Amino acid sequence: MKLKALGEDRLLDQLLPRLPLGKSVSLGAGDDCALVNAPADRNFLVLKTDCIVEGVHFLPRANPLDIGWKAMMRPLSDFAAASAVPQFALITLIASKETEAEWVKRLYGGLNRAAKRFKVSIVGGETSSTRGPVVISVSVIGFVEKKRWVSRRGGKVGDDLFVTGRLGGAIKGKHLQFVPRIAESRWLTKNFSIHAMMDLSDGLGVDLPRLARASKVSFKIEVENLPLNRGAKIDNAVSEGEDYELLFAVSPRQRDRLLQGWRKKFPKLPLTRIGSLNPQSAIRNPQLKGGYLHFQQRG
Amino acid sequence: MKLKALGEDRLLDQLLPRLPLGKSVSLGAGDDCALVNAPADRNFLVLKTDCIVEGVHFLPRANPLDIGWKAMMRPLSDFAAASAVPQFALITLIASKETEAEWVKRLYGGLNRAAKRFKVSIVGGETSSTRGPVVISVSVIGFVEKKRWVSRRGGKVGDDLFVTGRLGGAIKGKHLQFVPRIAESRWLTKNFSIHAMMDLSDGLGVDLPRLARASKVSFKIEVENLPLNRGAKIDNAVSEGEDYELLFAVSPRQRDRLLQGWRKKFPKLPLTRIGSLNPQSAIRNPQLKGGYLHFQQRG
Repeated sequence: MKLKALGEDRLLDQLLPRLPLGKSVSLGAGDDCALVNAPADRNFLVLKTDCIVEGVHFLPRANPLDIGWKAMMRPLSDFAAASAVPQFALITLIASKETEAEWVKRLYGGLNRAAKRFKVSIVGGETSSTRGPVVISVSVIGFVEKKRWVSRRGGKVGDDLFVTGRLGGAIKGKHLQFVPRIAESRWLTKNFSIHAMMDLSDGLGVDLPRLARASKVSFKIEVENLPLNRGAKIDNAVSEGEDYELLFAVSPRQRDRLLQGWRKKFPKLPLTRIGSLNPQSAIRNPQLKGGYLHFQQRG
Repeated sequence: MKLKALGEDRLLDQLLPRLPLGKSVSLGAGDDCALVNAPADRNFLVLKTDCIVEGVHFLPRANPLDIGWKAMMRPLSDFAAASAVPQFALITLIASKETEAEWVKRLYGGLNRAAKRFKVSIVGGETSSTRGPVVISVSVIGFVEKKRWVSRRGGKVGDDLFVTGRLGGAIKGKHLQFVPRIAESRWLTKNFSIHAMMDLSDGLGVDLPRLARASKVSFKIEVENLPLNRGAKIDNAVSEGEDYELLFAVSPRQRDRLLQGWRKKFPKLPLTRIGSLNPQSAIRNPQLKGGYLHFQQRG
């Protein structure tokens, strides 16, 4: 049955009872606003929105379960970057009236599965029709302890640069099925002083210069050390996006303890030192195509 | 200059410094997540997302200042419905690469102006390209005192039904320039026990049955008492949407004090008793075309 035959209210009747809802939700989807318990005073409230668009972030023939998964996991990857705990999500779905209701239900299956993976409650949303491509926008609300939040800004000269996992080639499939590094990020800030962190969504060559710029430093990459996915080359690791791995800066004094602790805690996931942060006055090394020049243009 | 020539990062450089930011924002747009102060323990956190789509909620030739205004004010109208105070907003803009950057700046001019009107900080957002119509999605985060929140669910048999302002004909222009009834709603919950409330976005004939259904009651409307906008007829007031006025249920014991206090506090804005809530077993009167039948189908 197509959405235009089913109607918005009947669609919602089918979707709403299946949404994951935690105990801290006082009023979930279906009313004008959602009401939830606020985080404790010692925490910051953390806010993030992201969207995926048909033809840009996924192909029309992609599995709707995967599309829903990706739509939820993208903003959750930003939570990993801030070392924050996600709690609540709002979903906006913009789709043609000709869309099959079954497709929408499977999309929500993917959104729900992804939300449950990180104990996120889906507390509201909005649907609208369009004559254009499908758009799914997800806003996520959560918290981070005031002593544990990390931004892109705190990188210091001399810091080691690390990345989790392997880079490059995500477009072959990983971009639809990745798991945000929230557990890893929470472990990092519990045990170490992480100076700056971000998730790699646009590619190391674009994202690392953003971290360096926000921290007012430059960087040096040991290209030969980049951890590559099977079949990926250095160019893929630098220029492609959608790795959703963590990039972070930490004092080299913590290096040994970090690498040893990591291997014990996350034995299956590589952690690789890929370079360091340098003084801004150092000669810039245009080793990162695109990303570096882009940074230089704006310096 | 078109967006594809300007590029996302340079566009953000121009937009971000102008975003309204209050003192409770610790980290605004530009990082992976926004960090803000959480509301006090005695309050609920309030969450709402809404979107507008070119060709559905606005025409391509509409003034971008008005479009931005409407995109922000729609979720704020839901805050009015919950008697909540909005504090933070996240913006998602999905537009063609061929869009003029100047158009986007004026759109943000409207978003910023609307946000400032209610002291809302714009703390983050996302942009994406599309080959389809423009989409603007706005998520708003705020608070409401645990003793003051109102939903659609609390209407009681015998309650008076009131609407603010006048209904019908919004499509002629008001839908782009309305002011959400947040001040009015906050006054109502400060001074009266409001049992149920919502904002009229889809039209009285659709929205009132939703309130009645959520409250598990039926309703009776005195059609001849509906407050009409100039040029609007009863049919317009019932069937058209986008009035963004408040509909609420309150005990008739408060009627006289409510009407007297309102005239003093909001002398320019009508407040009209339009009917009452009845027992669910009462014979249903299909006086509201579309809306009522829609309710009946689902009863």
